[in-house]
Amino acid sequence: MIRKIGTRTLELTDIPRIIGFGSAVGKKEGEGPLSLWFDKIYTDTTMGGETWEKAEAALQKEAVQLAIESGCVESNNIDMIFAGDLLNQCISSSYGLRDYGIPFLGQYGACSTMAQTLAMAAISAESGAANIAAAVTSSHFCSAERQFRYPLQYGGQRTPTAQWTVTGAGCAIAASYSDGRFLSAHDAITKYGDQNIKSQIGISRVCVGKIVDMGITDANNMGAAMAGAAADTIAAFLSDTGTTQNDYDLILTGDLGKVGSDLLYELLGRDNVDICDKHKDCGLLIFDTDTQDVHAGGSGCGCSASVLCSYIMKRMRKRELNNVLFVATGALMSPTIVQQGESIPGIAHAVNIINCTE
Amino acid sequence: MIRKIGTRTLELTDIPRIIGFGSAVGKKEGEGPLSLWFDKIYTDTTMGGETWEKAEAALQKEAVQLAIESGCVESNNIDMIFAGDLLNQCISSSYGLRDYGIPFLGQYGACSTMAQTLAMAAISAESGAANIAAAVTSSHFCSAERQFRYPLQYGGQRTPTAQWTVTGAGCAIAASYSDGRFLSAHDAITKYGDQNIKSQIGISRVCVGKIVDMGITDANNMGAAMAGAAADTIAAFLSDTGTTQNDYDLILTGDLGKVGSDLLYELLGRDNVDICDKHKDCGLLIFDTDTQDVHAGGSGCGCSASVLCSYIMKRMRKRELNNVLFVATGALMSPTIVQQGESIPGIAHAVNIINCTE
Repeated sequence: MIRKIGTRTLELTDIPRIIGFGSAVGKKEGEGPLSLWFDKIYTDTTMGGETWEKAEAALQKEAVQLAIESGCVESNNIDMIFAGDLLNQCISSSYGLRDYGIPFLGQYGACSTMAQTLAMAAISAESGAANIAAAVTSSHFCSAERQFRYPLQYGGQRTPTAQWTVTGAGCAIAASYSDGRFLSAHDAITKYGDQNIKSQIGISRVCVGKIVDMGITDANNMGAAMAGAAADTIAAFLSDTGTTQNDYDLILTGDLGKVGSDLLYELLGRDNVDICDKHKDCGLLIFDTDTQDVHAGGSGCGCSASVLCSYIMKRMRKRELNNVLFVATGALMSPTIVQQGESIPGIAHAVNIINCTE
Repeated sequence: MIRKIGTRTLELTDIPRIIGFGSAVGKKEGEGPLSLWFDKIYTDTTMGGETWEKAEAALQKEAVQLAIESGCVESNNIDMIFAGDLLNQCISSSYGLRDYGIPFLGQYGACSTMAQTLAMAAISAESGAANIAAAVTSSHFCSAERQFRYPLQYGGQRTPTAQWTVTGAGCAIAASYSDGRFLSAHDAITKYGDQNIKSQIGISRVCVGKIVDMGITDANNMGAAMAGAAADTIAAFLSDTGTTQNDYDLILTGDLGKVGSDLLYELLGRDNVDICDKHKDCGLLIFDTDTQDVHAGGSGCGCSASVLCSYIMKRMRKRELNNVLFVATGALMSPTIVQQGESIPGIAHAVNIINCTE
């Protein structure tokens, strides 16, 4: 059952389970601190494709395949896939997934997309709209650079507040847990392999974000543009659930980077919320900012997707983490509208991922 | 309750109700056959904005406002809004809706977006994820032309199979009907005005589309690229529900236009399904193709959105139509990927809209 608590948080009382997940990343990400956690690292980030866009589509397809294999499901067991990316008209998703034949719902939340797709998959699995629903997203440094900034060959200088778009994709597969629906997830889990039952990672709560515009007009400072949305959603979630940062092992933002993380602390500090001890940012986890020349950290849909669907989920399976508040953030802009002088609105969706005791 | 029937159709047993809807269109649309049905017609399609992108955002904002007023709700009663459009990074939605403060979930289904957002709003209202959920989308001839084809000033020739992007937006607001949730829609309807109770338009079934690629590579023949997806979804829906075209007053496709509609008949004909007598296409309804120089018909997210949220819904309120199968179709391409030689995959989502007897 889905129950609204507080102003806008949804409690999923049966707790849909994450039965599979997978991640695939590029060379630079494979050289970073999370190297050992990714399922697949490509040193040739063309993925054998002729163009960067086709490479990104292939990366997304690969992440879905890895998640399917880890979940011991088959693609035709998946009732719906929620997918999105940063490219114009979300082509990494549509071209990456067109061969699967899974009912497809394109999502756009910029870099918040992994939280959005995961939230939608969880809601679908909880509501009976799907027995099994997948969530996937990707980004690619080379396709993003030429679309949002400059062609790579131009060799544009990056500002200190700029972030480095992650080449990576992550996919998670959620399954309904309750009986009495068209097929219970418990049956599905039993049927398709028992290794998932040990971990019992589930999604207990979801908070859909509002658009928050902090008036930032610098397209090289996405962290700042997104920090307000992150603060808004985290504050709403904690208030709605009557919890504090101390109730979580980890509050994980998507890709605020250094600048955005500091701003987040400042904004939450105004409400006397101090998450510093519990907070990590995927954009700061995936790269070594001292040695990898990524300036303020990693970014892109694929950043939080690949970190969540590797390092975080695997640590949850080991029970090193048991209660994670995942808050991916996105900047809802396009180069066109920023060139027209508009400020950059942000959004953040929160998904509470827990280990279930039973 | 949401119940899966057949392979992939979802039955919404409590039938969420459409409590409000609104449409706003441009000058050319206002001169077409549906002129008298639209809520608002702008003769200055800049909408007072400085750019076409800002104009489209304003159009989407206006459609939401009209739907809110017609539903006698307030924006802060809306728990979630599902919104999308054709522009890069869906900026009409994010910029058009940022002032509302409604939890926002960006959707991308190209021209199928109105069916997708409506399906998601209905599923949310049925599942308890929202008491009231809105669905909106837009398109604008001028922003679409320069993004997908040529700058207007270039005066490019259009091929006979090309369609004319509709300048328009439509919004529908769905409310949960059952009791026992955080706020029953029945209470909401009673509270916010009784004119909606008379009409009792509801959403009874939803069928999420699969990506279907017919191998079409001509970006000026979107109708052909989308026809396969429309046929796939309509066939699946009829089979899943054990119904035939004769059970519906109208099977309404989004914007297949002349070319795509003919192809749809041919494809369904192979399975001995003949929908000709029951079929209309929004792209052929909104313009007079003989006199308005739109070649194969209208297109764009705003085409099906503005036709559905005016002519169709208003005729349903009058009970001239009682059972409509709305199937919006989208071509999931971008100019970049088509220039890279890829074919154009299509998608179609179906929403069964009915008048409820009580």
